[in-house]
Amino acid sequence: MSNETPRGNNFDHWLDSYAARANTLSVSEVRALFAVVSRPEVVSLAGGMPFVSALPKELMEASFDSMMTERGNYALQYGGGQGDLRLRDQIREVMALEGIHASVEDIVITTGSQQGLDLLGGLFLDAGDVVLAESPSYVGALGIFRHYEAHVEHLHTDHEGLDPDALEASIKQLKAEGRRIKFLYLVPNFGNPSGVTLTEERRHRIVEICRREHILILEDNPYGLLYFGEKPPVAMRSYEEDCVIYLGSFSKILAPGLRVGYVLAPPAIRDKLVLANESALLSPSTFTQMLISEYLAKSDWQGQIDTFRGIYRERRDAALDAMAEYLPHLHTTRPDGGFYLWVTLPEGIDSKAMLPLAVTELVAYTPGTAFYANGGGKSNLRISFCYPTPDNINLGIKRLATVINRQAELLDTFGAR
Amino acid sequence: MSNETPRGNNFDHWLDSYAARANTLSVSEVRALFAVVSRPEVVSLAGGMPFVSALPKELMEASFDSMMTERGNYALQYGGGQGDLRLRDQIREVMALEGIHASVEDIVITTGSQQGLDLLGGLFLDAGDVVLAESPSYVGALGIFRHYEAHVEHLHTDHEGLDPDALEASIKQLKAEGRRIKFLYLVPNFGNPSGVTLTEERRHRIVEICRREHILILEDNPYGLLYFGEKPPVAMRSYEEDCVIYLGSFSKILAPGLRVGYVLAPPAIRDKLVLANESALLSPSTFTQMLISEYLAKSDWQGQIDTFRGIYRERRDAALDAMAEYLPHLHTTRPDGGFYLWVTLPEGIDSKAMLPLAVTELVAYTPGTAFYANGGGKSNLRISFCYPTPDNINLGIKRLATVINRQAELLDTFGAR
Repeated sequence: MSNETPRGNNFDHWLDSYAARANTLSVSEVRALFAVVSRPEVVSLAGGMPFVSALPKELMEASFDSMMTERGNYALQYGGGQGDLRLRDQIREVMALEGIHASVEDIVITTGSQQGLDLLGGLFLDAGDVVLAESPSYVGALGIFRHYEAHVEHLHTDHEGLDPDALEASIKQLKAEGRRIKFLYLVPNFGNPSGVTLTEERRHRIVEICRREHILILEDNPYGLLYFGEKPPVAMRSYEEDCVIYLGSFSKILAPGLRVGYVLAPPAIRDKLVLANESALLSPSTFTQMLISEYLAKSDWQGQIDTFRGIYRERRDAALDAMAEYLPHLHTTRPDGGFYLWVTLPEGIDSKAMLPLAVTELVAYTPGTAFYANGGGKSNLRISFCYPTPDNINLGIKRLATVINRQAELLDTFGAR
Repeated sequence: MSNETPRGNNFDHWLDSYAARANTLSVSEVRALFAVVSRPEVVSLAGGMPFVSALPKELMEASFDSMMTERGNYALQYGGGQGDLRLRDQIREVMALEGIHASVEDIVITTGSQQGLDLLGGLFLDAGDVVLAESPSYVGALGIFRHYEAHVEHLHTDHEGLDPDALEASIKQLKAEGRRIKFLYLVPNFGNPSGVTLTEERRHRIVEICRREHILILEDNPYGLLYFGEKPPVAMRSYEEDCVIYLGSFSKILAPGLRVGYVLAPPAIRDKLVLANESALLSPSTFTQMLISEYLAKSDWQGQIDTFRGIYRERRDAALDAMAEYLPHLHTTRPDGGFYLWVTLPEGIDSKAMLPLAVTELVAYTPGTAFYANGGGKSNLRISFCYPTPDNINLGIKRLATVINRQAELLDTFGAR
């Protein structure tokens, strides 16, 4: 890092040159704080980092060795915009675990499923279009919808997931107002940030409504195979092909550093996705695709997912136990898979305002407002149990209880309610 | 590939749902033909694939081993939107070879430099904005500008590169018409597809004009270190910081399958690029970044670039020799580096119409129209000498001569001129 050219100031000589959409990019209000969170003494319940240490390095090494031996030059070269054919065929097997039967022709490999969302946003969203979403909804998707200047309408969501009645009512009202609704965006399994899973009965009703109303469902499913029960939920895409675009990822069942996700879409949309992918980055990384392909071909990848499931279930238990022990009066969701708890604070406590106090107590979380496009979530926070050890989860929630209880006392005493 | 669900037809139920920008995506007219080109008996002078076979696999293996040992968990995890700090510092050394002094703070890692162009297009281009470009210009950049609904104005370009007088005249006229000019887009070194290098004198004049007229220069430089002379050309970014955005890539000096490129931008623009990168794909692949970082730290990467230079120089010579032998009457550029020759056909021959005939003769090239946004380039074609062996280059150009001479005879006989 030596010998750097001194930096100029940040005055922007090009302010008059940006496109309108550049104004949609904003620095996260909590970003500065998260730099502090990386200090080792802070228990971070904030990030969504999978616990990659549980992936035996020998598995990656074996995959790399056979890849370089068998397809080294191919892995180092440019590939096609749709992604590698063998990997797409293997992805069919991954998706089959959740009841999906698909053609390799309809799968497009993306640079993480975030990029799949970005491509879909680019293909479908004109400024002012409406995206329907859960309450709360995934922060990365909200950022993309904002970037394409779409309006996000959050719909009523409870412990059974998105409410179909609210969906129907909202569509009716928006259509009456002449709005163009493009997507219903959902994380139906072990949602981020809610931890909630959409019931099967509601899945069917929602698909029926969207089919009738001609609205595309984006079924975003990074966590579905990280279930804590007996079997994974059945994907909506398994019983509806034409109005569901399904997004999957290797980030949570293998490793996010590889940046490989995939989109399964109806043929005409898939064709456009391939073109958009080529325009955006020529082709996804052949190298990381091949590494994953060798891994799926030669390792016990389902056994590895079982390992991950065991780890995350233990951490979920640690988180719920700690909530019951230290914050028994607070409402929290009880996820059957995935990475997250969604906690509702006592009335009057602002989770974003409380965050600096929490960091002072050496614990971090994500304030609920990150998961709403409309300012909602003030009295909520997301706890991630994916990365810290069970002991640290307990310690972190204990510290969090100290902060919350102190805030509640202050409110009782000085009566801000 | 067995057991596939039968595919539906491609009738698009969602035609009324796409965004306006989705119409900018179109299938390349020559794409179908290129599927044929992958047959081994066809000599392809069409693609831009680097000759990755010349990269010793031991180098990649050593980089992988030390990466997994020293930073395995880090490589598998999510990273930051700006890219890894150590790699950015190493990129400073790479850029220093072309005279650039930069701060690590001003470098943003992208998923290939194509993605850097896409992020910049998204940040700056509103529909109807103007991008100034060389004649001919890189097809991938033209696709991005079209995707953001910008108008590309091709400027007069000769064997010394873009003509500064044409630049001044065009700016004057466009401003008089009230148009917003956002970028001057250039591949100044061994251009794709022209093979032409911008002279130093013109670089200075162009920078001066753009500074005065407040127009950003996108200096796209994937080939600069693949020079065939004594030293690489000096980058424009080396003598102008505020109005030059520099794009670099590891695709040609290492391997495109890793999809790692970088953008060096003024601080305010760099801040926005980081946010756009995060929105588009959370973070570039930590895994491929770390692999490159280990490679740069522990291998003789400059020696490896010398190896590549030797190979490509030999192939350039083979291509020019074959042109002199079989097509002595045609004008071709004489590149001092890079991958490409730009050939001008006898008047009246349409290079796109001729392509199927060439493929029948078992040789392929890229028609010139791919490199113009305005229908130009009909009587030009690009020959890539990067991938085939010298013997195959000779054979390919010999076959090409057969096709061209036959076309010329037909024209002479039937007088289509």
